[in-house]
Amino acid sequence: MKKTFLLVIAGISLAFSTFQASAANDPLPVFDKSRTAIVITDPQNDFLAPDGKLHGLLAENLKELNTVANIETLMKTAKSKGLALAVDPLIYNALDVDWSRAGALQRQLLDMGALQRVSGKAGNFQGSGADFYGPYKPYIHDGKTIVVAPHKMYGPESNDLIYQLRARGIDTVILGGLVANLCVDSHMRALMENGFKVYVVKDAVAAPGADAYKAALVNYSMIANGVLTTGEVTRALGH
Amino acid sequence: MKKTFLLVIAGISLAFSTFQASAANDPLPVFDKSRTAIVITDPQNDFLAPDGKLHGLLAENLKELNTVANIETLMKTAKSKGLALAVDPLIYNALDVDWSRAGALQRQLLDMGALQRVSGKAGNFQGSGADFYGPYKPYIHDGKTIVVAPHKMYGPESNDLIYQLRARGIDTVILGGLVANLCVDSHMRALMENGFKVYVVKDAVAAPGADAYKAALVNYSMIANGVLTTGEVTRALGH
Amino acid sequence: MKKTFLLVIAGISLAFSTFQASAANDPLPVFDKSRTAIVITDPQNDFLAPDGKLHGLLAENLKELNTVANIETLMKTAKSKGLALAVDPLIYNALDVDWSRAGALQRQLLDMGALQRVSGKAGNFQGSGADFYGPYKPYIHDGKTIVVAPHKMYGPESNDLIYQLRARGIDTVILGGLVANLCVDSHMRALMENGFKVYVVKDAVAAPGADAYKAALVNYSMIANGVLTTGEVTRALGH
Amino acid sequence: MKKTFLLVIAGISLAFSTFQASAANDPLPVFDKSRTAIVITDPQNDFLAPDGKLHGLLAENLKELNTVANIETLMKTAKSKGLALAVDPLIYNALDVDWSRAGALQRQLLDMGALQRVSGKAGNFQGSGADFYGPYKPYIHDGKTIVVAPHKMYGPESNDLIYQLRARGIDTVILGGLVANLCVDSHMRALMENGFKVYVVKDAVAAPGADAYKAALVNYSMIANGVLTTGEVTRALGH
Repeated sequence: MKKTFLLVIAGISLAFSTFQASAANDPLPVFDKSRTAIVITDPQNDFLAPDGKLHGLLAENLKELNTVANIETLMKTAKSKGLALAVDPLIYNALDVDWSRAGALQRQLLDMGALQRVSGKAGNFQGSGADFYGPYKPYIHDGKTIVVAPHKMYGPESNDLIYQLRARGIDTVILGGLVANLCVDSHMRALMENGFKVYVVKDAVAAPGADAYKAALVNYSMIANGVLTTGEVTRALGH
Repeated sequence: MKKTFLLVIAGISLAFSTFQASAANDPLPVFDKSRTAIVITDPQNDFLAPDGKLHGLLAENLKELNTVANIETLMKTAKSKGLALAVDPLIYNALDVDWSRAGALQRQLLDMGALQRVSGKAGNFQGSGADFYGPYKPYIHDGKTIVVAPHKMYGPESNDLIYQLRARGIDTVILGGLVANLCVDSHMRALMENGFKVYVVKDAVAAPGADAYKAALVNYSMIANGVLTTGEVTRALGH
Repeated sequence: MKKTFLLVIAGISLAFSTFQASAANDPLPVFDKSRTAIVITDPQNDFLAPDGKLHGLLAENLKELNTVANIETLMKTAKSKGLALAVDPLIYNALDVDWSRAGALQRQLLDMGALQRVSGKAGNFQGSGADFYGPYKPYIHDGKTIVVAPHKMYGPESNDLIYQLRARGIDTVILGGLVANLCVDSHMRALMENGFKVYVVKDAVAAPGADAYKAALVNYSMIANGVLTTGEVTRALGH
Repeated sequence: MKKTFLLVIAGISLAFSTFQASAANDPLPVFDKSRTAIVITDPQNDFLAPDGKLHGLLAENLKELNTVANIETLMKTAKSKGLALAVDPLIYNALDVDWSRAGALQRQLLDMGALQRVSGKAGNFQGSGADFYGPYKPYIHDGKTIVVAPHKMYGPESNDLIYQLRARGIDTVILGGLVANLCVDSHMRALMENGFKVYVVKDAVAAPGADAYKAALVNYSMIANGVLTTGEVTRALGH
């Protein structure tokens, strides 16, 4: 991508070779651990469990990138290095199917009952498609992880993620989760509109197919403050 | 559309052919003209004028899609059909280069002086890279078009677009402008997070290269309420 | 209040006599029931139950205004007239006490454990200070009421209230609840910044003392689209 | 402070004497100058110039508090101590009178032409009611002050204030300006919802009459992180 980009821009190639260099992540960004959070969007069964309603859409990408393990590495790293960890789920209430203005994919998710809270029988939430992916629960339920209210579309505009981060003096986010070009991209954009520095972890996400993953990468590299691998994150936080 | 999508969950490749089918827009959406606005992002010289600082990046895509003419058609249609027209520019102030937290591309735009308001000499704004593209000015300056304050990143979070639309009872947006995967995509997402219905006009946008355009299309079709051509918009509003 | 206001303004008394007239609510506003919601903030035990942690602060005002009964009348009216009813609680999680930037009263609420979700033992939520006030539960838990995620400060910026209303095409809010000059005022302001029409029900609120109630009234009458009594609401919706 | 408040919950009257005690600001807050901005709302002719359209409403309060001089002291202090200074005006465009959903006072301001940008003749802006108050211009136009786009209602939700502050790493605001219970209060609330620490300068504001000023004070002292006098601000920043 970068090469074609360079060809296109003609007179301002200098600017974009800088751009390219910066994408090499050499040197790694320096994070102030007291001001940085690792944020994982939608680490839930319907995306990650083999029988999740949306797992099939992401399966190829999840496998190629080793996403499930990489997200766990990020969670583990947050805990061992003393960074704030926040998880931001997508959960629909039973009533949400009433929305008259839902977008294309959102409408489909609502109609197929994905990510839906079984209303009236709280006991059923445990292990449901909307519940957190089992292997991540020890990190999420350790009494320290910030579990924000569900977002309702793709970004954090309708929940308390930004408030929770700001209320703790956090101004930088290392971001991963599901789905690469939807909730992860929307979180990147919304957090940056709010003045956060955002670094996206490109192998701790997954998209529904190669085109959607490529779309996510194109946008991450133009918009974010940086795009990193899980390995680069752990190295950057290792010191 | 929904039924085919549900079948799809089993097999990924099927999902996306279905997905494309949904883009056929048959039948066309029915717009309530008193509640619908046409919104154009960044119709400015640095993107659209042949000597604009960013024109080279978009040139190929602008030509292929016939974007410049299509945006004019949308503006003309808003006027002839009595819909609200809003333009939402991206303009940096001289001081904005101080931002310590700018994203990758944003930093470069600031450093190269693109879309920048020449400070201290208001007279110089006329015809500058940040000024509106000349051929559109008759529509923009007719005393009826809503010209909102510049956004500062890619979405309308930092300006009065949403307030201006809501204050007029508008709840549906037909969206085009520059840049397809950046400001147009960010506007689509932010407007939808706010509960607007958004229809993106896929040939009234332009992206920096084929990959970025493809990225925009992937996201439009999953997220928006609909993806239309300029011709479909004029037909839908024709009645 | 209005008279002094008129004296002060001298030359533009005409404008403000209009203002005064409009405050008389004669005639009553006409509500489009399909686009109007009744929204109640913080109808929770810690405010409303006699043993609630903050009940003492509000007791005098609650009694004078007959607030508890008036809120119930509003809920009942929403149900009988087919309007959307939304409740928007204030609940702190155990972790929220970590906030390093809490405001004056917010810090005190956190330290005294008011409105706090007992973490780890979901069963204990029932009947706690953070739980909904018992007599309102039949309205809140009827499977139709929109129960949004807790807000974290005083307004709906950190939850899904605005999204839930917009997603249903609602653009007008009839507002009551606790505390008059805090969450009710903040909801009024935030909803109006978002372009909603807001009518505040001045006897379906309560404040911590006479000064705070007067403060709320001053702001409602200058800012809102209208200030009504519960009786006026039921009459306006009666037709 | 906290202990006394806890005692209070039993007896209401005690609560508020405690509350006032907390306003003693002893010791003064410690500001990190690189992270703190002084923000002044609406320092414009229609409020502050003797012939301003709204000056009569505020005159008594302006005189009692010595507001005009105090705001200048805050601006001067920002400059001499190296803090960021931001001004956030309220300006209506000619088209804004079309708003179908304006609130009570907002409607009147629109109808009386207060704070309105004379459209089509930019030259006329200079010295108009919407222009900045003359004596403040040397501070505002020094090429360093952050002049954000006009807000449209009372808070900064519809402009770039929050983005401009966050983009510079600012997380604390010292707040003054006009009108005490409207734009100043709305800015306090909105900034705090966004996680800023906010200190309001109670003698660098003015309200339309004694009741409105009292309303502002009641809300500042409950909501803000602190309430200071101009003298306390200069002392706190003196070191």
